[in-house]
Amino acid sequence: MEGVVQCSANYVPLSPISFLERAAFVYGDQVSIVHGNTTYSWRQTHQRCIKLASALSQLGISRGGVVAALAPNIPELYELYFGVPMAGAVISALNTRLDAPMIGSLLEELEAKIICIDYQFLELVLKALDFLSLSNSKAKPPLIIVIPECNHTTDLPPSSLDYNRLLEMGQNDFEILHPIDECQPISVNYTSGSTGKPKGVVYSHRAVYLNSLAEIFRSDMRAMPVFLWTVDMFRCSGWCFTWAVAALGGTNICIRNVTSKVIFDAIRLHRVTHICGAPTILNMIAEAGSSDQQPLPSKVDVIIAGALPPLQTLNKVRELGFNVSHAFGMTEALGPVISVPLDNDHGMIKRREGIHNLMMEGVDVKDPKTMISVPPDGKTIGEVMFRSNTMMLGYLKNVQASQQAFRSGWYRTRDIGVRHPDGYIQMKDRVVDAILTSGGESVSTLEVEAVVASHPVVLEAAVVGMPSDCLGEMPCAFVRLKEGFSTSEKEIVEFCGDRLPHYMVPQSVIFGDLPINSTGKVQKFVLREKAKAMGSLSHSNGH
Amino acid sequence: MEGVVQCSANYVPLSPISFLERAAFVYGDQVSIVHGNTTYSWRQTHQRCIKLASALSQLGISRGGVVAALAPNIPELYELYFGVPMAGAVISALNTRLDAPMIGSLLEELEAKIICIDYQFLELVLKALDFLSLSNSKAKPPLIIVIPECNHTTDLPPSSLDYNRLLEMGQNDFEILHPIDECQPISVNYTSGSTGKPKGVVYSHRAVYLNSLAEIFRSDMRAMPVFLWTVDMFRCSGWCFTWAVAALGGTNICIRNVTSKVIFDAIRLHRVTHICGAPTILNMIAEAGSSDQQPLPSKVDVIIAGALPPLQTLNKVRELGFNVSHAFGMTEALGPVISVPLDNDHGMIKRREGIHNLMMEGVDVKDPKTMISVPPDGKTIGEVMFRSNTMMLGYLKNVQASQQAFRSGWYRTRDIGVRHPDGYIQMKDRVVDAILTSGGESVSTLEVEAVVASHPVVLEAAVVGMPSDCLGEMPCAFVRLKEGFSTSEKEIVEFCGDRLPHYMVPQSVIFGDLPINSTGKVQKFVLREKAKAMGSLSHSNGH
Repeated sequence: MEGVVQCSANYVPLSPISFLERAAFVYGDQVSIVHGNTTYSWRQTHQRCIKLASALSQLGISRGGVVAALAPNIPELYELYFGVPMAGAVISALNTRLDAPMIGSLLEELEAKIICIDYQFLELVLKALDFLSLSNSKAKPPLIIVIPECNHTTDLPPSSLDYNRLLEMGQNDFEILHPIDECQPISVNYTSGSTGKPKGVVYSHRAVYLNSLAEIFRSDMRAMPVFLWTVDMFRCSGWCFTWAVAALGGTNICIRNVTSKVIFDAIRLHRVTHICGAPTILNMIAEAGSSDQQPLPSKVDVIIAGALPPLQTLNKVRELGFNVSHAFGMTEALGPVISVPLDNDHGMIKRREGIHNLMMEGVDVKDPKTMISVPPDGKTIGEVMFRSNTMMLGYLKNVQASQQAFRSGWYRTRDIGVRHPDGYIQMKDRVVDAILTSGGESVSTLEVEAVVASHPVVLEAAVVGMPSDCLGEMPCAFVRLKEGFSTSEKEIVEFCGDRLPHYMVPQSVIFGDLPINSTGKVQKFVLREKAKAMGSLSHSNGH
Repeated sequence: MEGVVQCSANYVPLSPISFLERAAFVYGDQVSIVHGNTTYSWRQTHQRCIKLASALSQLGISRGGVVAALAPNIPELYELYFGVPMAGAVISALNTRLDAPMIGSLLEELEAKIICIDYQFLELVLKALDFLSLSNSKAKPPLIIVIPECNHTTDLPPSSLDYNRLLEMGQNDFEILHPIDECQPISVNYTSGSTGKPKGVVYSHRAVYLNSLAEIFRSDMRAMPVFLWTVDMFRCSGWCFTWAVAALGGTNICIRNVTSKVIFDAIRLHRVTHICGAPTILNMIAEAGSSDQQPLPSKVDVIIAGALPPLQTLNKVRELGFNVSHAFGMTEALGPVISVPLDNDHGMIKRREGIHNLMMEGVDVKDPKTMISVPPDGKTIGEVMFRSNTMMLGYLKNVQASQQAFRSGWYRTRDIGVRHPDGYIQMKDRVVDAILTSGGESVSTLEVEAVVASHPVVLEAAVVGMPSDCLGEMPCAFVRLKEGFSTSEKEIVEFCGDRLPHYMVPQSVIFGDLPINSTGKVQKFVLREKAKAMGSLSHSNGH
């Protein structure tokens, strides 16, 4: 159109950095972060992040460089979510439950120049770097920045740096490196690896800016919420709440470990408005001792993602006065994208996934081959697919996987679902049969099966989820032994225990033939029924 | 970053069209629009807008074409805000208080292919088209679409079309023409022309998408608000609430004429949550008869932009239970950008402009020559400047004015202000209104007006600069007295002399009515002309 002009007055690349800049200005004196006895204002957090960005720049971090992190939900990790992008770089916080070889492998993939770690992970990370140097990597190992224990000095290894010393290096007047293009990456978030090695999911400034707003809308947040950090920041960048809380000038209540007592104390002390995380949160609230379970001073919204909790747990939490919502999402979509308040009949909502976020451009159930939408009849199954600006840029160093995930211009969730006449989507199954544990971990049955099958006397193995006595499922292995050999449940469990993280170890092993369909594939739905029957049996037996 | 892929799964040009598509899906059965006895659901509004877009396409409207409109806040005008962009075109609703020559002139500038008008403006528009054909325009006159009076048939002139017939032409399965680039224009909004001919301000899809979200945040809206249309849709596209209400699946209460009775009836009948507009709204609420002033069924937020209302009016409205906020903005910034709730001391907030919108990237007070920020001392004056994605693309067919408005990469508001130590901006005056005295002082006419207006018998006051016998100007006050009261120039001058520094005291006082424009603003340029004439007269008289 004649007369229009595009310039920096009317076009600024979208970035959550601007949330912090505005918070420092509009909410300068409001509390940004509380951690134990430490409290910062938004003006201080802004200043600290500027100094952090400045110091990182002095260490040679430049546009597009990666700074990794390994820490619980402490203020320093929060600061990295702004300070690293303000240096033009990319933040990648790793799952604190990973082992050393995996950490080494991810650092190599990330080509991380720096890793900022909590003091308690120093030994783990040094071991990871040993693995890194053992591999044929040409990359220089990353510099280690150690976040010390409160008021303690930690003995640091050579060529590592104390986080507080780093901050002291920073200049107050560092000029923030805003993204030149809003589609530039801001963070890499690893999947929990349900289908193999964790995949590095790359988020852009644009996507996290918009998704922060979407999360605010979805969780019905107003100005200055009080957010209790019960969801790991390393999961989808804390579902983008790392940035969203700044957009609203809210208060971040940081905690190292989530317990019943910590939750209720924070609610009482800080008037928490929002709690997010895995369904175990509900368990903690429901099973807290009566001395911890204090009356709520005001409304508290709890948003859980993962397996749906048992009705009695949910009812208990609601009786205590919490508003509970259930959300569905994935790392690739920056966190929860569909959610439903758990305030109507539990039996019904259990099977529906609810309302999609404001920023979703398309949510559909389609025939994955023809790309035609299924009729909204509640019966015809298809694959759940999304289109959205709040979607990953792709998988790090795996353009093929990225193209595969986005083929025909839709993100393929690999979840099977139907569309109901009222528009609601109902999930039916994972295309891949992942197990959702009560801890919120997504366990790849394929990985567990590979380990079980590597036992010398095992011929064939299939793993499915068995309802656990807690909130989620646990792995259950069905095993066919080699002709003429024998073993025990205990031996298989121990064998897996030596080779897998505890949450992936099968808790039950059943021996016998596996049900096979006409094309020779194990019929997992048959095994799931069996496991379910056994699970409820063990419950009724008081296990 | 290696591995990333940009495609339609993770990049969709931002456009408010998607708000309507989502509303039809998520809020399909909720009421979208109420107008008298007419009620639509979001599913119906979506369908009607698709048919409208389809019909416009059949009439030859294509990407970038302009559809003008002239109508009060009726459902059909609301539909045009979606239907026209869904045909790829640009909507331009004109001020219904313009005269025929001005309408003709704007239609010529817009090169409008179609004009949709309310039945009551038919004669006016036919006259405007006469002016259009009299000018040396080569352009074909636009096709007239007439929105008929409810249940009436209007006699239509040849080569015009009934709006309902147009909709019948539309196809249900029309494929929406989403913008290819989110920076493409969606609407042209004319300024009120306080400084001359109205300027056509061009908005982009991206800007109105983001500003809709900003308005939602600013006005503290939640899902499904009930919005009473007291702000003209032709003003800044109804401050972008045309689109924002769809984003939240809210209900639009459309009305032809705003009266006290209509406001209170709508609150009672529809449980209105939000009312926006000029300060006259407050007058209507405060001065409503006691039979109209019914108790509020729930919280009602009122957001006013423009001059601050008298304290007694404001207090009356607040006593009735309304929450009132005062906003500051301009057509170029898509509506209000800074606002403050009127819940603290009136005298104080009168002089502060408050908190800027979430989407504003920069709000500053700068020396317009050096572009250096003024110190936050509450004293040093500078020009208020903005940077934001929620800013116009520029002025239609006036690239020079666009470049002038955006020079050095900031939007120049031409408002003079200071920055206080707490960060708040205080507006002092318009750049053009400020008086430069021969002593080199810069006098804020607003400050002088406030003092004059505080005189017990003064109803209203406006102050402008009058050329002085030296090099500069001196303040000249135009005063309208309260009914039945009288005073003298001497008394007013002495009154001000007791309360203002000598250089700010008006040297002339003229009594009478003040010239007002269509938005209720005093036309200072008219007063300046008068003052200038008087100034030269007094010079020649040897004063």
